[in-house]
Amino acid sequence: MADYAHARGVDRLVRLALDEDLPGPDLTTEATGVGGCSAAAAFVARQACTLSGIGVAERVFAILDPAVRFERLREDGATVAAGEAIARVSGRAGSILAGERTALNFLQRLTGVATVTRAMVDLLAGLRVTLLDTRKTTPGWRQLEKAAVRDGGGTNHRFCLSDAVLIKDNHVRLAGGTAPAVAAARARLAPGTRIEVEADTLAEVRAALAAGADAILLDNADPATAREAALLVGGRAVLELSGGITAANLREMAATGADCVSCGALTHSAPAVDISLEFL
Amino acid sequence: MADYAHARGVDRLVRLALDEDLPGPDLTTEATGVGGCSAAAAFVARQACTLSGIGVAERVFAILDPAVRFERLREDGATVAAGEAIARVSGRAGSILAGERTALNFLQRLTGVATVTRAMVDLLAGLRVTLLDTRKTTPGWRQLEKAAVRDGGGTNHRFCLSDAVLIKDNHVRLAGGTAPAVAAARARLAPGTRIEVEADTLAEVRAALAAGADAILLDNADPATAREAALLVGGRAVLELSGGITAANLREMAATGADCVSCGALTHSAPAVDISLEFL
Amino acid sequence: MADYAHARGVDRLVRLALDEDLPGPDLTTEATGVGGCSAAAAFVARQACTLSGIGVAERVFAILDPAVRFERLREDGATVAAGEAIARVSGRAGSILAGERTALNFLQRLTGVATVTRAMVDLLAGLRVTLLDTRKTTPGWRQLEKAAVRDGGGTNHRFCLSDAVLIKDNHVRLAGGTAPAVAAARARLAPGTRIEVEADTLAEVRAALAAGADAILLDNADPATAREAALLVGGRAVLELSGGITAANLREMAATGADCVSCGALTHSAPAVDISLEFL
Amino acid sequence: MADYAHARGVDRLVRLALDEDLPGPDLTTEATGVGGCSAAAAFVARQACTLSGIGVAERVFAILDPAVRFERLREDGATVAAGEAIARVSGRAGSILAGERTALNFLQRLTGVATVTRAMVDLLAGLRVTLLDTRKTTPGWRQLEKAAVRDGGGTNHRFCLSDAVLIKDNHVRLAGGTAPAVAAARARLAPGTRIEVEADTLAEVRAALAAGADAILLDNADPATAREAALLVGGRAVLELSGGITAANLREMAATGADCVSCGALTHSAPAVDISLEFL
Amino acid sequence: MADYAHARGVDRLVRLALDEDLPGPDLTTEATGVGGCSAAAAFVARQACTLSGIGVAERVFAILDPAVRFERLREDGATVAAGEAIARVSGRAGSILAGERTALNFLQRLTGVATVTRAMVDLLAGLRVTLLDTRKTTPGWRQLEKAAVRDGGGTNHRFCLSDAVLIKDNHVRLAGGTAPAVAAARARLAPGTRIEVEADTLAEVRAALAAGADAILLDNADPATAREAALLVGGRAVLELSGGITAANLREMAATGADCVSCGALTHSAPAVDISLEFL
Amino acid sequence: MADYAHARGVDRLVRLALDEDLPGPDLTTEATGVGGCSAAAAFVARQACTLSGIGVAERVFAILDPAVRFERLREDGATVAAGEAIARVSGRAGSILAGERTALNFLQRLTGVATVTRAMVDLLAGLRVTLLDTRKTTPGWRQLEKAAVRDGGGTNHRFCLSDAVLIKDNHVRLAGGTAPAVAAARARLAPGTRIEVEADTLAEVRAALAAGADAILLDNADPATAREAALLVGGRAVLELSGGITAANLREMAATGADCVSCGALTHSAPAVDISLEFL
Repeated sequence: MADYAHARGVDRLVRLALDEDLPGPDLTTEATGVGGCSAAAAFVARQACTLSGIGVAERVFAILDPAVRFERLREDGATVAAGEAIARVSGRAGSILAGERTALNFLQRLTGVATVTRAMVDLLAGLRVTLLDTRKTTPGWRQLEKAAVRDGGGTNHRFCLSDAVLIKDNHVRLAGGTAPAVAAARARLAPGTRIEVEADTLAEVRAALAAGADAILLDNADPATAREAALLVGGRAVLELSGGITAANLREMAATGADCVSCGALTHSAPAVDISLEFL
Repeated sequence: MADYAHARGVDRLVRLALDEDLPGPDLTTEATGVGGCSAAAAFVARQACTLSGIGVAERVFAILDPAVRFERLREDGATVAAGEAIARVSGRAGSILAGERTALNFLQRLTGVATVTRAMVDLLAGLRVTLLDTRKTTPGWRQLEKAAVRDGGGTNHRFCLSDAVLIKDNHVRLAGGTAPAVAAARARLAPGTRIEVEADTLAEVRAALAAGADAILLDNADPATAREAALLVGGRAVLELSGGITAANLREMAATGADCVSCGALTHSAPAVDISLEFL
Repeated sequence: MADYAHARGVDRLVRLALDEDLPGPDLTTEATGVGGCSAAAAFVARQACTLSGIGVAERVFAILDPAVRFERLREDGATVAAGEAIARVSGRAGSILAGERTALNFLQRLTGVATVTRAMVDLLAGLRVTLLDTRKTTPGWRQLEKAAVRDGGGTNHRFCLSDAVLIKDNHVRLAGGTAPAVAAARARLAPGTRIEVEADTLAEVRAALAAGADAILLDNADPATAREAALLVGGRAVLELSGGITAANLREMAATGADCVSCGALTHSAPAVDISLEFL
Repeated sequence: MADYAHARGVDRLVRLALDEDLPGPDLTTEATGVGGCSAAAAFVARQACTLSGIGVAERVFAILDPAVRFERLREDGATVAAGEAIARVSGRAGSILAGERTALNFLQRLTGVATVTRAMVDLLAGLRVTLLDTRKTTPGWRQLEKAAVRDGGGTNHRFCLSDAVLIKDNHVRLAGGTAPAVAAARARLAPGTRIEVEADTLAEVRAALAAGADAILLDNADPATAREAALLVGGRAVLELSGGITAANLREMAATGADCVSCGALTHSAPAVDISLEFL
Repeated sequence: MADYAHARGVDRLVRLALDEDLPGPDLTTEATGVGGCSAAAAFVARQACTLSGIGVAERVFAILDPAVRFERLREDGATVAAGEAIARVSGRAGSILAGERTALNFLQRLTGVATVTRAMVDLLAGLRVTLLDTRKTTPGWRQLEKAAVRDGGGTNHRFCLSDAVLIKDNHVRLAGGTAPAVAAARARLAPGTRIEVEADTLAEVRAALAAGADAILLDNADPATAREAALLVGGRAVLELSGGITAANLREMAATGADCVSCGALTHSAPAVDISLEFL
Repeated sequence: MADYAHARGVDRLVRLALDEDLPGPDLTTEATGVGGCSAAAAFVARQACTLSGIGVAERVFAILDPAVRFERLREDGATVAAGEAIARVSGRAGSILAGERTALNFLQRLTGVATVTRAMVDLLAGLRVTLLDTRKTTPGWRQLEKAAVRDGGGTNHRFCLSDAVLIKDNHVRLAGGTAPAVAAARARLAPGTRIEVEADTLAEVRAALAAGADAILLDNADPATAREAALLVGGRAVLELSGGITAANLREMAATGADCVSCGALTHSAPAVDISLEFL
């Protein structure tokens, strides 16, 4: 796993998940006495998907029982066909049964995010527009879901409130206007820091440009307004469209001349992909 | 908040979420210098929904800044109309802006689970069938999502591997059959412990009954098979249907004579409900 | 170690114990300069006992110094004679000296619980009665002490407040009687959930039966009352005796016709077994 | 609570205990629907005892539900009669029921330690001998059990391996004798650091004296040997007796002229004191 | 405390610090029996300084004993004269004595960072150059030390590896040159992301400009080279000087025409400021 | 690493440091795409120093990526020349780049403490005086900095408030004088416990001697007073000088006849040593 910070986040979340599911012994396996048998099983996609989270599934078993062997057949970002095996596990049956649900819960959700993202990115074929995610992620999962967006071919917007400046309507109102808000920020930030400003109308786009914004997030615009905004901006700032973006309107919005389109549903409403663990 | 264990889980997850979103200062609020202003805002539902997670949103602000005042207007489980206010917050603008996204990320997802559950429960009107959730929950969120299912009128299936016995196909195979699996469990468990057995076919339902199962989970059955199974069981065990249950087939499946229907999508694929924080 | 949840609990508690005993360096070993020598030692039982906690002792050294070799000579649940070696450790003297007391503190207490349990179970020879533990465990040690009870041949009662229903006198009083308490629970719980009701008198046993309890915990009864209760229940519910059970009265109580006897002293008052680490 | 470090330890252990007992909701209270009632109850000693842990019981409820009112009637160290009330709690019934067992598990064990200690200290009446505890404490509980020993009138020996030097037989062997062990320690430690040496025989006592030990721990001696050792030492070092000390031989051992007697059973084998929570 | 993320970081670090200093009771206060007295004391600067960490000192006492009253007399960023009181504490003497050293250890170091920063910023008077910090902070203290730099009038460079792009010599070498490194980054990052490139020579400055870097960090340059670099860049990118900056050469370096100067010594080598707690 | 408690402390602090620096991915390495290359690098001292923290640097990479090979060339306590290599790392370039700054931040500070300590110890050549550290350590770093002092040839004073008795001016005042403070402590502590008393004047030295102090810490004395104090004490107690000790006055203070000199600046103001990671 090349993404180290994320790798450490994985372990903390995997432990939390195992604590939830196994506060005590696995009653069923203990009671039936089958834990000590040897077993092998395969994670199989039940529907076509773009894989994400294979490393997390691997950590589930590594943390539960280091003696379980986990063999990846596909990597994050891969296009997987329905019926295709993703990974194989073998070892103590008790360990495989104990980790099965937790591993699936991770895999299904993250692959869901990557799959939705890939579908959206494919809709943008031929356009020079970047699909961005948002901060509308599942609490506790931000790094994992942002990685799933990358696995699906999307690009990450800011990770958190501490790493980029996005002046929203409320900041503008409290600061007494776009110009004073941007000016205050310029004065306090290191030279060259990128400042993005949210706009809800063309007037606000003009104000943001006048204030010297490096990027403008135009929220909840219809395609006509977006097109006008793109003309207005004319390359003097990065233009990002946001709000209400769905598969249905993505291409139309992206064709307006904007540089980026951001979509919260990539992470907050991606349905789980059907994956199962089949014992061999 | 009456659910204490859950209350403690909330704080841990809220801290994790705030750590993700605020590893350092809120750059935008610091740079624009508006953090010290007073502000008030309302959480408003943008669509009709069944509320869940109001206590979590409250904890977000309590942990971030105890001086923020949070007033609940509705409680978990309430039916909320589009446009209706759910809660009001007031205090330092910087605190409200810093907690906004995290509070919304919790509220939108949990209310999503409760809303889907409520819709499914309503489809069962007039039938004596219980809608159950599963262990297919978001890792780290099990107690919260199980509570959201209750808020939506659903009933919780087991919480984890340690609190109930569910003998699945793999246990049966490894134990050499349904009868020896159940017999082994009976011998090891305290007298009177409830044993549920998974069945994929009517033959397996018969085997489970013969082995003395207290409950039978019939997986992936069509309505006809489910009806036959209900006749076969005839009240000698609790009959639960699972697998592939959606809003489209729920009522038909529930009308087969089964006692319960369980549905993983309640928790793994509920779309986020649209809720926003409107500054006053 | 086959019990994964417990395995994870072990590590957290082992770390807590090592933090307590070694907040800084081991002053004596550092000052005498002997830490770097090689050493080997054996854990030896100083009295006959039933072993529990060997895996915990192993984790103490694994966490402290992965280079220490720990060889188990006996497994949990084994009957060990006075003078018999349980395990051998070898490696850096400093590591063995640093882990000695912590490993012994775990082993002595858990073996104490298993030994007391085994003695109680042996008193039940020939009777069809199950010896149960309780929730009267050492805070922080529940999974370990419950496992020690299993190692001693006992059976676990519920693990926590979240995994089984036991309606006690106070629930009955607050609910306005046994019948309404049980009825309320039946309405809220998934079909088939086992409901146990506590009773202090024969009248309460009757009330519990009438209310449809699946199991009845008769508290603090004398043998005569217990016999009468068993006749009354007549197999319609599981009957469990609790309160004031000691080695002195266990067999008499168990012979009353009850199904189970539960005993808090297994975990809250088992004296430590004398085990020592002998350097070779 | 005046003992701050211990106060923080309490919270961590209380949280661990609550997590064990309440991984999810309190099923019984939820199912019977009685959680919302108001209730009041008293902790009552069922046997005469020396109290310890009242502050821990208080923290259990404070952490679970800050709205519960906890009124101490007696303080740690108090002599409590059978039937006497120790504390009163009032508030939401659900909160009191949820915290009952955890609070009792702490109180019963700590009061057990204080009660056994007090009985041992009373046996020393009129002698100028100090009763010491050991590091044979329950892992996770060292600060709490050491405080219980103080509550019972005992005195704490070292808290951990990092705060005092005690050269044991194995250090001596590895260092090539008592004299080189003590000399090495003197050279490395700050001037004036107290060095205690373990001795198993009178010869070893002599060696320790010759090496300049500040204190000598004589292990497993009979009274005659202890008397001889006291004469030998003659006030040139502190003499401590350890090993096999019980109520039966404590006074005889203490009357040998030693300065201190240490006893592991104070913490590793004190039976729980019977305390119950009586609802009013 | 307006900086929430930082506020949460404070508590974790304060707890770690208190655990270090108080693993058990405060032996001296317990032994002398003075803990229960009332006391009042003032934090007094022994030398002129720029204050930072007053909120951390406040949290030390709040966590240790919520009954201690802590009154701030000065705020972070204030210029404090030698002999001036910074804050007053009153309450249980035992609590004040227990928190004294920990509070001072925080205050002295953070005020040290702010004081050094302020002195450096003052040296830049009249120049349009920004003083930046680096990632050379004390592990565990990044947010606190970055806030101290702000308190001293400095500006924060990036907080971590995840929030800004700085292509260093090793990235360039591994990517096969400046141009391919920048091009690869442009292709993967969201449009408009700021890219900074490190340069050690004027040739590398030229390469960075040609590659389209938004900012250039010129490392270890002498004033003449820095001046030439500034001419070369000519406002087409932000120019930052770094490496070997001290009070002795700061103004000369800053006068070269660069936009920013960054200095690791602000955080890695600031000597502690002398502050003491005087009992009244 | 022979110091186990410290070893565990290292991991916690290393994780905290990595979380600070890598809350998400390493943006630069990801964006330039060079993470997957193989690389090797050496830690090189840029100035003569006494090494400390090599094991911590090793843990940084072990935690980040177990596949990185870390080869120590020198050990803690070694005298290292300017330009000398301390350790070599090889493995994935992304892992080395991700851990570089964190490893350096640890190494530079700890080596700073050891280097300053070694310089001070060398100033004491030929004198029978022990150089002690204090509790003025960086919060979170106590064990590491105390180990660095040992690596530099210094000796540790007490580790925390729980492991040694040091009666300061405030204890004396609250207890009503030196004599009652010492008497109270003697009565409560185990026989033979060492009691140190702080004195600011010769009168207080006399009072401490009269009260039977085992050690006296004379604070902020000039050399003449220190000499007089040494004559006064005359070997009846350990005499320690503290307060305002610097390299400039250390030898003069040490030559007064005192047994020890303690110096807070060893840990609170040691400048970082310049160490860099050079890619090969």
